[in-house]
Amino acid sequence: MLQDNKTEITRKIGCGYEVVRIGVRDLAKPRSLPSEVFTNELETIVNDPTIDVVLELIGGIDPAGALVEKAILNGKHVVTANKELIAKHGSRLVELAKSKGLDLHYEAAVGGGIPLVQPLKHQLAGNDVLKMMGILNGTTNYILTKMQVEGSEFASALAEAQGKGYAEADPTNDVDGFDTAYKISILASIAFGKQVPMDGVHREGIRSITKTDMQYADLLGYCIKLLGVVQPTEAGKVLVRVHPTLLPKAHPLASVNGVYNALWVHGDFVGDVMFSGRGAGSEPTASAVIGDLIDVGRNIMAGGGGSAIPYGTGMQTSSIDELTTAYYLRIQVTDKPKVLGVIATVFGDHGVSLAAMEMKTLDQGRGEIVFLTHPCRERSFCESLKELSATNTIETVCNWFRVESAVA
Amino acid sequence: MLQDNKTEITRKIGCGYEVVRIGVRDLAKPRSLPSEVFTNELETIVNDPTIDVVLELIGGIDPAGALVEKAILNGKHVVTANKELIAKHGSRLVELAKSKGLDLHYEAAVGGGIPLVQPLKHQLAGNDVLKMMGILNGTTNYILTKMQVEGSEFASALAEAQGKGYAEADPTNDVDGFDTAYKISILASIAFGKQVPMDGVHREGIRSITKTDMQYADLLGYCIKLLGVVQPTEAGKVLVRVHPTLLPKAHPLASVNGVYNALWVHGDFVGDVMFSGRGAGSEPTASAVIGDLIDVGRNIMAGGGGSAIPYGTGMQTSSIDELTTAYYLRIQVTDKPKVLGVIATVFGDHGVSLAAMEMKTLDQGRGEIVFLTHPCRERSFCESLKELSATNTIETVCNWFRVESAVA
Repeated sequence: MLQDNKTEITRKIGCGYEVVRIGVRDLAKPRSLPSEVFTNELETIVNDPTIDVVLELIGGIDPAGALVEKAILNGKHVVTANKELIAKHGSRLVELAKSKGLDLHYEAAVGGGIPLVQPLKHQLAGNDVLKMMGILNGTTNYILTKMQVEGSEFASALAEAQGKGYAEADPTNDVDGFDTAYKISILASIAFGKQVPMDGVHREGIRSITKTDMQYADLLGYCIKLLGVVQPTEAGKVLVRVHPTLLPKAHPLASVNGVYNALWVHGDFVGDVMFSGRGAGSEPTASAVIGDLIDVGRNIMAGGGGSAIPYGTGMQTSSIDELTTAYYLRIQVTDKPKVLGVIATVFGDHGVSLAAMEMKTLDQGRGEIVFLTHPCRERSFCESLKELSATNTIETVCNWFRVESAVA
Repeated sequence: MLQDNKTEITRKIGCGYEVVRIGVRDLAKPRSLPSEVFTNELETIVNDPTIDVVLELIGGIDPAGALVEKAILNGKHVVTANKELIAKHGSRLVELAKSKGLDLHYEAAVGGGIPLVQPLKHQLAGNDVLKMMGILNGTTNYILTKMQVEGSEFASALAEAQGKGYAEADPTNDVDGFDTAYKISILASIAFGKQVPMDGVHREGIRSITKTDMQYADLLGYCIKLLGVVQPTEAGKVLVRVHPTLLPKAHPLASVNGVYNALWVHGDFVGDVMFSGRGAGSEPTASAVIGDLIDVGRNIMAGGGGSAIPYGTGMQTSSIDELTTAYYLRIQVTDKPKVLGVIATVFGDHGVSLAAMEMKTLDQGRGEIVFLTHPCRERSFCESLKELSATNTIETVCNWFRVESAVA
C-alpha cells in the first residue's frame, strides 16, 4: 500500500516517507523489498534514532508490548494493530505517549479496515453513548452465517472456516469470544473514558449453538450473532458482555454476514449510527494502519502530535446478573399433562413472562419446547431455570440465549 | 449538547469552554440562555478577539461565506455545517485556514451525524477510492421509502413528507437533487483531492418516478434510491452524478430506509465499507458539529491546528455520456406482431443486450414492456432510445433509469 499509493499518500501527509527498516522473524524468506531493509533484531528498530514512526504488527503482549513502550520512550510515534496490547495496557501506553507529545494510534485493532476507533474518539465524542453492539470477529460471523444459510452444525462450519484460512487450527481465540472481548473492551474504554479490565468482561463463545437453535431462531424471526455489547448501568459503571445473541432480522446488524464486521452505536444526540465492512485480512488492516500513519505524518507536519485523550484505569463493571433482557430457551420434556402449566407457573413465580413459544413432538413421548421471554432480570431467568431443572417435568435444558428485543 | 454533556466534552477537549456569543435573526424570541449571549449583529462575533472558535450554522452562501472568511482572517478556527459553502468554496477556505494554522471542519455538511467527512480524510485516506455511492438526502429517501412500502405516488408521498416537516414548502433543493449534488461533490473533492465544480455534477431528481416503476423494480428484485455516485474515469478525471437508481435489494444501501442516510465506499485496500445513520435533524447535526469542535479544542491544546489537507480547484469531470451501466426502460406499445422484434433489433444494432423483461397487456390493444439491459454505454442506450422513439412501434417511452448491477 505504501508503494502502490505512494503519490496520493505523500500528498495527503504533506511530505514524503521512507520505509527504513522492517522487522521479521525469518530473514531467509524471499521478499519484494531490498534485503538490507529487513532485520530480525527488533530492538534495533525501536532504538534507531533516524526512525520517526514505528508500526507494530506483531500482535500479542510479548515482545510487542516492550517494543512499543521502548519506541515511545525513544520519542517515536507508534501505530499498532494489537488489540490484546491495547485492551490490556492501552491506558498506560496512551498516557505515556501523550506525556511525550507523541501519537499512539490503533485503528486497526478493532474492526479491521472499518473506521471505528477514531470516529468514536472524534466525530461521536460529544455523545453520551447509551449502547454499542458489534459483530467484531469475522471468523465467528462466517461460521454463524454458514450455519444459518446452509443449515450446517458448528463443527462442520468451523472445519470449513479452517479450510478457507478464516479460522486457526486452535480456534479458541475466535470461537470462545476472546477476540471480541478485547475489541469491545477497547471500544468501551474509549466511549466511557476509563480502561475496562478484561476480567470485567462477561464472555461466552459460540460452540454451544446448534443447527436446531438456528432453525428455531429463524422461525421466530431472529438470527444468532456473536455480539460484543456495552451499555452504561449505574453512575460510572458499564456492563460489557460477549455472547451469542438472538437478533431480530430487521436489526441492521442482522444482515451483516460472512467475514464482515459492524458496529452499531446509539448515542444520546446522534441517535443510531452503524459502520460496516471487512473486519480482518491484510489489505483492510493495511488500510487502517496507513490511515493512522497519515494522521501521524500530518500531526508531525502541523507540530501537534499527542492529541490523544488519555483515559484512566479501573472502569467499574457491572455483573451480568444485573442485565435486563429477553431470553430464548429450548428444553425437552416428557409428554404428559400439566408440563406446560408447571413451567409457566415457575416462570411466573419469578416474574418472567413469556412472549412466544414453539412446540414439537419428538420420538418416544418426548417433546421439545422453545420459549421467548419478555425482558426480565438475568437473575430471575436463571433462578427460574434452576427451579425448573429441579422439577421432574424437564428432561433436558438444551440451550438458552439472550435476545435483543428491539432496534434501539 | 454543550450544556447536557459538558463534563464529558470538557474531559475530551482537555479544557473548559464557554459559549461567548450566539448570533440569531430574532432577538425577541424566547431562549433558554441568558439574553446577553445573543446578538443579531453577526459581524461582532467574527470580530470578537475573545472568541477562539466560530460555529457557522446559517447555511447558504450569503452572509455565511463572508462571515466564515472574516472569522478565519481574524484567526479563528471554524466549524461549519454548510454544504453549499463547502461545495462551492471549500478549496479556497481550507487553503486560507491552513495558511493561518487554523482548522476548518465541516463534518455536519454531509450525512448529518454520520461520520463521513473525517473518516474519508483520515482513516480511509491511504486508499485509492474506486467508487462511492451515497444516499445523502433524508427527504427524498423518506419519499422513496413511502412510495416503495405503501405504493404511494410521488405527489402524495411528498405531501406527507411536507406534513411531517421532512420536506420544505418548496422542495426543489431536495427532490431535484441539489442537496445530494453538494454532498457528493464534497465527498468526491476529499477522495480525489481537487474541488469538483458544481457544474460538472450530472444531476437528476426524483419527480419522474412513479408507483408503476417502483412496482416493476420490486418485481425485478430492485428498489429505487436517489444516489450520489462518484467514480474515477480516465487519469485524473471523475464522473460525479446524482440520479434515481435501481439498486439490487441485496445491496447494503437498499435497506437504508426512511430519513436514514448512508455512504458506501469501495477502496482499493479496504474493500467496501458502509456508514449509515440519521442524515439530518438538529440533534445528529449537533453531534457532528460538537465532534468537530472537540477536535479543534484538542488541536488548540496540542498546538497543532491547521492539519487539514488543502485541495486544489478544477477537478476535471467526465460527461455522463461516458458512463457504462445497466438500464431500466419502461415503454408502452401498440399490441401488434413484430413489436418485440423491432425493439430487440434496434437495441442489438447499438450493442445493447437485454438482461430481463416484463410484459403486460393494457387496455385497447396496448401493452407495457419493461426491459433491464446488460451494462452498456449511456450513449448507446440513449441512441437506441432515440431510434426506437422514431419508429412507430413505441407509443410512449414512459421512463428509464440507470441500474446498479452488482455490489462491487
